[in-house]
Amino acid sequence: MTAEPAPARSGESARGAELFGLVEQLVPINRSWTGAGVRATLALLGRRLPLEVHEVPTGTRAFDWEVPREWNVREAWIEGPDGVRIVDVAEHNLHLVGYSIPVSERLSLQELDEHLHSLPDRPGDIPYRTSYFGETWGFCLAHELRERLPEGEYTVRIDATLADGFLTYGELFLPGETAEEILFTTHVCHPSMANDNASGLAVATVLAETLGTRRRRYGYRFLFTPGTIGSLVWLSRNEERLGRIRAGVVLACLGDPGALTWKRSRRGDTLADRVFERLLADRGGDFSIRDFTPYGYDERQFCSPGLDLPVGRLTRTPNGEYPEYHTSADDLTLVRPEALADSLAALLAFVDVLERDRTFVNLSPKGEPQLGRRGLYSATGGAPRQEGFELALLWVLNQSDGQHSLLDIAARSGLAFSTVADAADALTDVGLLAEERG
Amino acid sequence: MTAEPAPARSGESARGAELFGLVEQLVPINRSWTGAGVRATLALLGRRLPLEVHEVPTGTRAFDWEVPREWNVREAWIEGPDGVRIVDVAEHNLHLVGYSIPVSERLSLQELDEHLHSLPDRPGDIPYRTSYFGETWGFCLAHELRERLPEGEYTVRIDATLADGFLTYGELFLPGETAEEILFTTHVCHPSMANDNASGLAVATVLAETLGTRRRRYGYRFLFTPGTIGSLVWLSRNEERLGRIRAGVVLACLGDPGALTWKRSRRGDTLADRVFERLLADRGGDFSIRDFTPYGYDERQFCSPGLDLPVGRLTRTPNGEYPEYHTSADDLTLVRPEALADSLAALLAFVDVLERDRTFVNLSPKGEPQLGRRGLYSATGGAPRQEGFELALLWVLNQSDGQHSLLDIAARSGLAFSTVADAADALTDVGLLAEERG
Amino acid sequence: MTAEPAPARSGESARGAELFGLVEQLVPINRSWTGAGVRATLALLGRRLPLEVHEVPTGTRAFDWEVPREWNVREAWIEGPDGVRIVDVAEHNLHLVGYSIPVSERLSLQELDEHLHSLPDRPGDIPYRTSYFGETWGFCLAHELRERLPEGEYTVRIDATLADGFLTYGELFLPGETAEEILFTTHVCHPSMANDNASGLAVATVLAETLGTRRRRYGYRFLFTPGTIGSLVWLSRNEERLGRIRAGVVLACLGDPGALTWKRSRRGDTLADRVFERLLADRGGDFSIRDFTPYGYDERQFCSPGLDLPVGRLTRTPNGEYPEYHTSADDLTLVRPEALADSLAALLAFVDVLERDRTFVNLSPKGEPQLGRRGLYSATGGAPRQEGFELALLWVLNQSDGQHSLLDIAARSGLAFSTVADAADALTDVGLLAEERG
Repeated sequence: MTAEPAPARSGESARGAELFGLVEQLVPINRSWTGAGVRATLALLGRRLPLEVHEVPTGTRAFDWEVPREWNVREAWIEGPDGVRIVDVAEHNLHLVGYSIPVSERLSLQELDEHLHSLPDRPGDIPYRTSYFGETWGFCLAHELRERLPEGEYTVRIDATLADGFLTYGELFLPGETAEEILFTTHVCHPSMANDNASGLAVATVLAETLGTRRRRYGYRFLFTPGTIGSLVWLSRNEERLGRIRAGVVLACLGDPGALTWKRSRRGDTLADRVFERLLADRGGDFSIRDFTPYGYDERQFCSPGLDLPVGRLTRTPNGEYPEYHTSADDLTLVRPEALADSLAALLAFVDVLERDRTFVNLSPKGEPQLGRRGLYSATGGAPRQEGFELALLWVLNQSDGQHSLLDIAARSGLAFSTVADAADALTDVGLLAEERG
Repeated sequence: MTAEPAPARSGESARGAELFGLVEQLVPINRSWTGAGVRATLALLGRRLPLEVHEVPTGTRAFDWEVPREWNVREAWIEGPDGVRIVDVAEHNLHLVGYSIPVSERLSLQELDEHLHSLPDRPGDIPYRTSYFGETWGFCLAHELRERLPEGEYTVRIDATLADGFLTYGELFLPGETAEEILFTTHVCHPSMANDNASGLAVATVLAETLGTRRRRYGYRFLFTPGTIGSLVWLSRNEERLGRIRAGVVLACLGDPGALTWKRSRRGDTLADRVFERLLADRGGDFSIRDFTPYGYDERQFCSPGLDLPVGRLTRTPNGEYPEYHTSADDLTLVRPEALADSLAALLAFVDVLERDRTFVNLSPKGEPQLGRRGLYSATGGAPRQEGFELALLWVLNQSDGQHSLLDIAARSGLAFSTVADAADALTDVGLLAEERG
Repeated sequence: MTAEPAPARSGESARGAELFGLVEQLVPINRSWTGAGVRATLALLGRRLPLEVHEVPTGTRAFDWEVPREWNVREAWIEGPDGVRIVDVAEHNLHLVGYSIPVSERLSLQELDEHLHSLPDRPGDIPYRTSYFGETWGFCLAHELRERLPEGEYTVRIDATLADGFLTYGELFLPGETAEEILFTTHVCHPSMANDNASGLAVATVLAETLGTRRRRYGYRFLFTPGTIGSLVWLSRNEERLGRIRAGVVLACLGDPGALTWKRSRRGDTLADRVFERLLADRGGDFSIRDFTPYGYDERQFCSPGLDLPVGRLTRTPNGEYPEYHTSADDLTLVRPEALADSLAALLAFVDVLERDRTFVNLSPKGEPQLGRRGLYSATGGAPRQEGFELALLWVLNQSDGQHSLLDIAARSGLAFSTVADAADALTDVGLLAEERG
C-alpha cells in the first residue's frame, strides 16, 4: 500500500472527482446477494448507463448451484440490559451478518455472544460477515464495544424476510464491428464498503460510458452481478455465447492508493494477460503481475476448468492484503480520486491496445525499404543513435512477417505499444505494410 | 556439509538407531566387485529381507563388458626391514588395493614405493584404491607412515586368488497392483567405509522391509549390485523388463550430516525428478537439486543413451564433495543416526507421493461446485484468507481437467503434496472428482 | 570500454602488429558509398587477397532501392573573410559531408552556418555526416573552431561529381568440401576512421588470408561492400544462393579496447549464435551477448524478414557506445594491436568450432563402454574426481544419441568445445563413435 500510482495525466483530476462522487453515492446502499440493495445500486448506475436489469427467480439452476431465496431487511438491532440500542443496522450496514434469519428474542450475554463477530486485532472496526447458507443470524461490532458489554438480558430484533423472490443483475452490451467481445465484470453484493466494492462499480460505469461514444472494433460487455452466484447465473444462461469472449477483466478494489495489480487468467498467456503486462510497464510507476490462483473474486468462476475463459483480474491492492479489507475501515478515506482515475486510465489504455493491436505483413520484406524517399527517415546520416519513432519503424518492418502482432513487437523491442502502433500506421499510409488476413 | 537435515519426526530416533546398528555390522566386511565380502554382505541383509542372490559366471557378457575373474584375499601385508608388519589388511581392509594380484616378494624401499598409495593432503588417512583391470598390486597407507619408512629390504605378501568364479548380486522384488515398477539400487562393492557405502545398504534394506508390509500400487525392485559391472550385468539380463520402470533412485552416501541432494535423471523431468523436487521443498530444511552428469554412481549406467531410464540419484553430500570421501576417515564417526533416519523418511515420502499421485477429472467443472452444502466449506463468509485445506480443494477442482496430476497441482499451487492429495480424497468422497482413466 | 580483452595468446603480438599496419594504410583513404575511395581500398586489400571486384551501374535495382549516382571529390574547402582556408577536405576527409553536391559560392556566415555540422559535446572533434539522398552540401568541423568564425563573406568550393557511374564492391569465395557457406561481411564506406571501419577491413582481410591456406569443410565467402546499399545489391544479385549460408557474421569495430560483443541474429538461436555463446565463454575474459535489434550495421539487411539469414554481428564496443564513434577521434590512438589480434583469434576460434562441430552416435550405447581396455581411462580407480578429458569422454558418450552435436554437448557439460571435440576424436579412433549421417 506504500506504492504510488503512476503520475496523473491531464484530465484525470476531473475524472477522479467524478468517480469519487459516484463512490460516495454507492457506499451507503445495503447490498447483498439479492434484494433491494442490489436493485437500488443498479437503478443508480442506470441513470448513467442503458443497463438491462435481469430478475432471475429463486430456485433457478445455475450449474451446481441454484438461485437462493431473496433477502430483505427492514430493521435489525440489539438492545442492552438498560434498554439502550448497542448496535443497529440503521447506523452501519455491516452490523448485520448478511442473510441473517428473522429473530425476535431476549437472551443472556452468553447466549448472545455466540452470535457476535468482532476483530480483536482491529478493535475499533466492524467486520463484514455473511451466512448465505447457514440459516442463522448474527451481528458484527467493534471488538472494544463487545468487550465492554455488561452481563444481563439483551433484546435482539431482526425484521428480515428470506423468501422466494429474485436474484437481480445488470448487463450492458456495446456492440462492435466484429462478433468478438471484451468482458468487464464487477460484483454488486458488498454493502457499504468503498474500495470493495463501490470503487469497481464506479470505474466500470464510467468506463462503459466512455466506450459507449467511441467507434469499437470489439463488442464490450459489462456485468454487474452478485459475487459467485450472479456470475454463475450469467455464465449458465449465456454458455453458447462464451466462445465470443476474446478477453475479460474482473474489476475490484480500484480506489485504494496501492499500485495496480494484474492477476493472470488460468491460462496465463491470453490476450488480456499480454496486454496488461505490456501496458503496465509502458505506463511507468509501480505495478505487479501475479499468477492465477483459484481464490479471489469471480475469476474463480470464469476460470473454472469447464469454462477456462480468457479472463484475468485488475485490482489495486488485492483482496485481503490491505488492513481495512472487509471491515468498516474500508470507507471513503481509503479511496482516492487520483487512484480511481488511474484505474480508469489503465482500463482505457487496455482498450486502446486491444483496438489497435493487429498483425501486419511487410510488403517490402527483402532488405529494408528506403524510408528516406517516403519521408519517414531523416536525410542526414551518421548521427549515432536511432530513437523512438524511427526505431519503431525499423522494428515494425523487421517483425511484420505475419507471425508477430504489434503487441508482440512492443514486447520484443521494449518500445511503448503506442509508438509501435503509430509506426505501423505511418508504414501502412505509405504502402509498406498491410494487415495480415488470417 | 554444514547444512542440517530436516528436523527429526516422531519415530525417527528409533529408526536412526536401527539403521546405525546395521551400518555398524556392514562396515567391517571386505567388499569388492566379487568374492566373499559381497556374499557376506548379502547374507547379512538376507537375514532381514527375502533377497534373491544371483551368481553370474566369470566371462558372461554384459553389453561391452564381461564378468571379471573372482577375487578373494586371505592375507596381505608388508613387513619392514626389521621384520615388523607395517600394513596389514587384517587391520584395515583399505590397506590393500582392490583386485591386487598375488605377490610374495622381497624388495627395496624404492621398488616398494611404486606400489604404495597415500594422501599428502590427508596424511593420517588411508585412501581407497582399486585396480580391476591393471593386473597389478598395491597397498594404501597413511602418508605420515609412508614418509617415515626406512631404507632396507621389505617383504610383501598378498595371498589372494584371482580366478574364474562368479559375480554375486542381490535382488528383491515386491509386487504391486500394477505391472509398473519403481527401482531402488545401491552398490555393494566398497569395503569398510561407513557412508560410502554401508549407509546406502542400510537405508535400502530398511526401506524394503517397510514397503514389504504395505499395500502397493507399484511394484518395488531393490538391487544390491557391485558398482558399474553389477548394474551392467543386471541391465543386460533384464533388458526386456526395463520398460516397466516408471521411476528409479540410485542410493548412496545417505548417512553424513549434509543436506539431501537429488541428482536429476538424464532426461531431467521424469516422475522421480518431479517428485523429489516437490517433496524436498515440502519437507522444509536445506536440500539441493542438481542436473545430471555422466559421472558418479550407477546412474551412469541406467542413464546411458541406449537405455535412458527414468532414474536419478539420492545422496546427502555427493561423492567427492566431503573430505573423508574414499578414505579411512569415512568411518562410523561420519555417519549419524538422525541423518540415516532422515534419508529413509525422504524415501518413504517419495513412495507416498508415487502411491498417491493420480490425475483426476472435476465432475462439476463449470463454475465452482457448491462446497458448503457438501460440508467442505465453512458456513460464514467474508473472512479474509483461505488457507490450507480449503485452498487445496479449490486448486484440485480448478486444475483437475484430466491434464494435471496431483503432483502438478502441488507444484503449481505451492501447497504440500499431502494437503493436495487429502483434498482430492475429500472431493472424491463427495462425488465431485473421479480418477482419469486413460 | 574499461573491460580488457582476453589475455594475448602466443603469436598474437605479431598478428596484432600486422593488423595494425593494415589499419594504418586504410585510414587515410576517403571512402564513401561509391567512387575512387572504395576502389582504392579494394585495390589495397587486393594486394593480399584474390578479390573479385564488382562494378554495378547507377540505376540498377536492388529490392526497394537502386544504385545511386557515383560520387567523387577533387577538392572541397571553405575560405574565411581573410582568404585563409578554415576547413579543407585535403586535411581531413571528415570535413566534407558525404555525397555533397558541387558548390562554388560566396556567402555570409549566417548562410554558411546552415551547412555546418559540429559537436557541442566534443568541441575538438570533427563529426562524420552523410547526405546520400539530400541533394545538398555541408562541412563538418570542430565546434570550438565553428564558435570562433568571424562575421564576413566566406568562399565555399566543392569540386565534386555526382553522376551516373558504378557502385563497387569486393568479394572472395574460398570453396569448401561441402556446398554450405559461412559468410563474413564488412562495410567499406566509412572514410578515415580507424575503428569504424578500417579495423573490420583489416581483420576480415587477414582472416580470409589465413583460411585460404587451410583445409575447409565449409566454403567461406567474404564481402567488402558499401553499407546498406552494397549489401542490398549483393543480396539481390545472389538471392538464389542465400540458402547455402549456414552462418554469417557482420564484422565492425574490431580494434577498440572494449570487450567482444556478439549481437544475435534475428532468429537468435542460429549456428553462429550458439557457437559465439560457447566460444566467448570458453575463451575467458569479459564479453557480452546481445539480442538482435533492427538497427546497427548490415545485419539490418541480412536479417530483414523476407531474408532472415542466420547472420549475427561481432564488434568490440558496439556502434554508438564509445565516445569517439563517428568522429575524427576514432583514429589510430583508439585502435590497439592486441585488440585487433584478439578479434581475429575469436573469429579463428569460431571457424574452428564450425569445422569441428558434428553430431555423433555412440556405437556402444547400452551402459558405458569399457574405456580402460581401450587405453582411454586411467587404470587405478577410487580417486575422487574426474576432470577434463576423461569427463569429456563420458559426456560425449552419454549425449551422442544422434540428437546432440558436440556444440550442444559443450553447452550442456560446461566443458570447453575443444576438449569435447578432442574426446570425440579419441572415441572415433577406437571405434566407439560414428558421425550421424542425416
